[in-house]
Amino acid sequence: MRRLTPVRFTDVTMEGAFWRERLDTVLAKTIPSQHVRLKEHGILDSLSLPKPVPPLRIPCNRHDFTTQIFWDSDVGKWIEAASYALAHRRDSEIEAKIDAIVETLGKAQAPDGYLNCWYLGREPDKRWTNLRDNHELYCAGHMLEGAIAYFQATGRRRLLDIMCRYVDHIAAMFGPGKGQRRGYCGHQEIELALIKLYHALGRREHLDLALYFINERGREPHYFDIEARARGEEPGAYWAKTYEYNQSHIPVRQQTKVVGHAVRAMYMYAAMADLAAELGDEELKRACETLWQDVTGKRMYVTAGLGPSASNEGFTKDYDLPNDTAYAETCASVALIFWAQRMLNLDCDSRYADVLELALYNGALAGLSRDGTHYFYENRLESDGSHGRWEWHTCPCCTMNVSRLVASVGGYFYATGENAIAVHLYGASTAGVSLGARTVKISQVTDYPWSGKIAIRVDPDVPTRFALKLRIPGWTQNPTASVNRTPVDGSALSLGYLVIEREWSAGDVVDLDLPMPARRLYSHPDVRMDVGRAALRRGPFVYCIEQADNPGIAISRLRLPAKAPIDTVPRPDLFDGIVCLAADGQLADAGDWNGTLYRDRPPAVSPARLVAIPYYLWNNREPGRMIVWIPEC
Amino acid sequence: MRRLTPVRFTDVTMEGAFWRERLDTVLAKTIPSQHVRLKEHGILDSLSLPKPVPPLRIPCNRHDFTTQIFWDSDVGKWIEAASYALAHRRDSEIEAKIDAIVETLGKAQAPDGYLNCWYLGREPDKRWTNLRDNHELYCAGHMLEGAIAYFQATGRRRLLDIMCRYVDHIAAMFGPGKGQRRGYCGHQEIELALIKLYHALGRREHLDLALYFINERGREPHYFDIEARARGEEPGAYWAKTYEYNQSHIPVRQQTKVVGHAVRAMYMYAAMADLAAELGDEELKRACETLWQDVTGKRMYVTAGLGPSASNEGFTKDYDLPNDTAYAETCASVALIFWAQRMLNLDCDSRYADVLELALYNGALAGLSRDGTHYFYENRLESDGSHGRWEWHTCPCCTMNVSRLVASVGGYFYATGENAIAVHLYGASTAGVSLGARTVKISQVTDYPWSGKIAIRVDPDVPTRFALKLRIPGWTQNPTASVNRTPVDGSALSLGYLVIEREWSAGDVVDLDLPMPARRLYSHPDVRMDVGRAALRRGPFVYCIEQADNPGIAISRLRLPAKAPIDTVPRPDLFDGIVCLAADGQLADAGDWNGTLYRDRPPAVSPARLVAIPYYLWNNREPGRMIVWIPEC
Repeated sequence: MRRLTPVRFTDVTMEGAFWRERLDTVLAKTIPSQHVRLKEHGILDSLSLPKPVPPLRIPCNRHDFTTQIFWDSDVGKWIEAASYALAHRRDSEIEAKIDAIVETLGKAQAPDGYLNCWYLGREPDKRWTNLRDNHELYCAGHMLEGAIAYFQATGRRRLLDIMCRYVDHIAAMFGPGKGQRRGYCGHQEIELALIKLYHALGRREHLDLALYFINERGREPHYFDIEARARGEEPGAYWAKTYEYNQSHIPVRQQTKVVGHAVRAMYMYAAMADLAAELGDEELKRACETLWQDVTGKRMYVTAGLGPSASNEGFTKDYDLPNDTAYAETCASVALIFWAQRMLNLDCDSRYADVLELALYNGALAGLSRDGTHYFYENRLESDGSHGRWEWHTCPCCTMNVSRLVASVGGYFYATGENAIAVHLYGASTAGVSLGARTVKISQVTDYPWSGKIAIRVDPDVPTRFALKLRIPGWTQNPTASVNRTPVDGSALSLGYLVIEREWSAGDVVDLDLPMPARRLYSHPDVRMDVGRAALRRGPFVYCIEQADNPGIAISRLRLPAKAPIDTVPRPDLFDGIVCLAADGQLADAGDWNGTLYRDRPPAVSPARLVAIPYYLWNNREPGRMIVWIPEC
Repeated sequence: MRRLTPVRFTDVTMEGAFWRERLDTVLAKTIPSQHVRLKEHGILDSLSLPKPVPPLRIPCNRHDFTTQIFWDSDVGKWIEAASYALAHRRDSEIEAKIDAIVETLGKAQAPDGYLNCWYLGREPDKRWTNLRDNHELYCAGHMLEGAIAYFQATGRRRLLDIMCRYVDHIAAMFGPGKGQRRGYCGHQEIELALIKLYHALGRREHLDLALYFINERGREPHYFDIEARARGEEPGAYWAKTYEYNQSHIPVRQQTKVVGHAVRAMYMYAAMADLAAELGDEELKRACETLWQDVTGKRMYVTAGLGPSASNEGFTKDYDLPNDTAYAETCASVALIFWAQRMLNLDCDSRYADVLELALYNGALAGLSRDGTHYFYENRLESDGSHGRWEWHTCPCCTMNVSRLVASVGGYFYATGENAIAVHLYGASTAGVSLGARTVKISQVTDYPWSGKIAIRVDPDVPTRFALKLRIPGWTQNPTASVNRTPVDGSALSLGYLVIEREWSAGDVVDLDLPMPARRLYSHPDVRMDVGRAALRRGPFVYCIEQADNPGIAISRLRLPAKAPIDTVPRPDLFDGIVCLAADGQLADAGDWNGTLYRDRPPAVSPARLVAIPYYLWNNREPGRMIVWIPEC
């Protein structure tokens, strides 16, 4: 069913200032510093067994639970991110660190292949007794993704072998067969990892196991009920109150509403889309489409942040998108990118690419600081100045999710299909694309994301007829294109893609001009928090007003007149060169309120210039207020 | 220092439809049904000792705490409310119920006078070991208020005697003397009760004990530190994290910001104002004035709801007044009325009466349903339809706070000073006022709160010269007054009161016309939740738009044009006759959004009539949405 196959990030060289800077920062700063933090916080040492049981360091006050149970996953995700870095540039120091971890894991692994360091070190007799809460398969999944990435980057198989033994153990343990448990993980993740393993090794049983986990989820009798009773607990006493929390309330193919914990949901939908593609499973594809429409039509922040609520780290009600308390976990936007990519490559429909790009440049990228060593776990859309970045987090999942995303970002730009090459994202880069027996080099020269002018050079090894599919983003209007300076009719798009089918020869150049005006966005009228407010957008970026750019002004008092032009202001001096937006706004006056809180006429206003920066850059200078949705007047 | 003394509610007969209905409902429905609930929920039986320790019924998941520890207070508050009812109309059935409780308490009381049924029944050896959390003195205070009220209503002293013995025990236990504990209650309340006891019996030591508790609070070394260490706990491990929670972070006279748990704060400020009046304590008065300015200028909902946050049942930051998550506990608005009354009678400054009236008709009265048997604990200012009234509550404090308020509402209307009678509130009623050796009957004939036209008949027993002080509410404009149809110059007000000093003779009539137009209110520009929104007000009422009055319309999509006239619409058919407000508004159209959540033009609008009812009446019909702050357009 899949029409397109992504070009791996290892075949794409990022060349422009924008992604080069983020990539260099992640390679040089983020990944090494994450290793330091994993060591400092006892996470690396927790893998060393046998040894005294590590003390319970981080209780969670919501229920009887500690984030320590998923420390294996943090290490796995770091190995994955570091391995992507190695694919860019080998580094013996990093490799030695990974090899040391692999040694430790090799020693920890049980004779039967089982390998979860929390259970092995602390309660070895309780393996597989609480899949609902305790993340065992989730940890296995992340470590497996790390193993695959390390193998692909270096050719070293030891970790992959260890994890394949563990997968064999898991495959023996879970399934519909006699003596097997009909279980699945409370935190979806292993499904994605198994599909990656299938892609890496081509062994069908890995795909089948992923499919089993997806199909079994939510069936009755409910596994988490059975398991709770076996622990001597009442299933109804579940702390999260509903299996919607982990999307096991009904079988996944019947799900039509995006509910519960946002990251779990996104990982699951990504795996469903993968399986739909691999197996031509139309029912799974339809379920994904319904869920996609639900989340993007009713439950997504304008930044592609997901999950407004801290209490379930997830979804609440339709159109419930509070700004100042937005949870919008970085991981959820990263996982949305995973899902979007898989949906995109099913039909090459640009609405998936639009959301992918939105999440990439906003909800996900905001999670990583400019210096590469500070993070947002929760991504507010409004702040009174009290919300800041962390150097680390009790639950460090987001830190490595954003580093593995950036380290492999080139993998989201291009894809190939039958006689077709798709360009999903724009940005200076060169890709070596295999098209059947041919090799086509695609090079973009552009200042994107700051400009919408893109020159795409197409260099097949020999002249080749194929369709070049160029995404026309939803945010542009009146785009133009030419091939070798001859205009192309851009009016007829195929699912949002301009398709130029011709015989391409080395040196052919497509000039694409995607006008990138600053524009306002408005929310659906049922998003009550955004009534009477506008957000600013230009190209892939959503903007925010941050205190640092508006000195001397209480930015929460700024108002944007409905007709005020939004100016585009290049700022080469700021953050190595960005484009700001600005407008002549108004500032509500608090001076004549005389200690009153309510009165019968609205605040007076005076003129004030209003300056906005891309949302992902906020909180990289002094702490201060921030707002995305600006009241209009 | 006190200029005015309130006329007791027992000397005021409420005659108008508005308060007669509320009063009859409370007497006939609320108070009897509350006794049923107290029985059903085991609260009454928990007083019967000795007997098997009652099981812990209601754990609180916030910390190691159960609301059961303050069940004595719920009974005390019910006795108080029921006694106020008896003052209106004796009732042998209710009296028998109270006498039964008194018998039980008499048996429970320890030989040394101690009387807290939780500790006596469950952990008798732990008395007075956790004043910070466990409400012992708070319970004593409420039971004492019940005892005073029952004595005053019936002349029966037994409960008062029991409680006086307990107070003697408390007075011996706490104080600066040798062998005494320098403690005070984590939940202020006993201070108010002791001052009432002083007023009832005239014994100075009761006033002194109240003053001691107020003065000792927040001093170093901190009693709650000492007490925690004595329990073997680290003071820093306090679950509420800060002593701001119970206003003991610094000595009360140094406090300038309204912080922490809202009800505790209000009870304390009320006691401070009482003490300032009794003792002529200017420092306490100034502290009260500073705190008053802080709460009314920065931290109060437009309904006089207090405390936006559920997590501390209290205050957060200046101008932080979220509507859909407003905690605004009913008790806090009731307690604000207590405080406001005491501030008002210090200087007869109408800004205190304005807030008193606002709280009475909105934040407090909203807590009681039309049928008199359902309650709001939390008073949202916006609801998606999921917030509804309770038949009872885990923590039933608000239920009896609102019944004791309504049962004694006449006590807030009139006050006397030296050669002066003040009318603070308007409403059809007759008061018998003692003015020195004279008696003056004051009668109001009016449809207030629905109309601002008030005829006040003044009937002194003999012609008497005094000043009649008539409050001119802050919400009116261009009021007029006449005495016996001769206009009075109303332009020179004394702290918001029109003062008519003359010799009054029987049959004199003051006609007061307080124009009561519908008007809009706007919030200070730093209340970010209300930017671009207006609330509607008429007379003492804040209005809200409820789904029931706007059928077929998603009220969250209603917009109010900035210039639209607000119409006053009498509705004799609704709730026994109320005045609605209405306007030609606009309705945002969701029809052309086609599944999108964000787009580059605002929603289209179509005309829609918008109907609002007084806020206190919401959620008395079918469940539905509600909004106070209406987006303007």
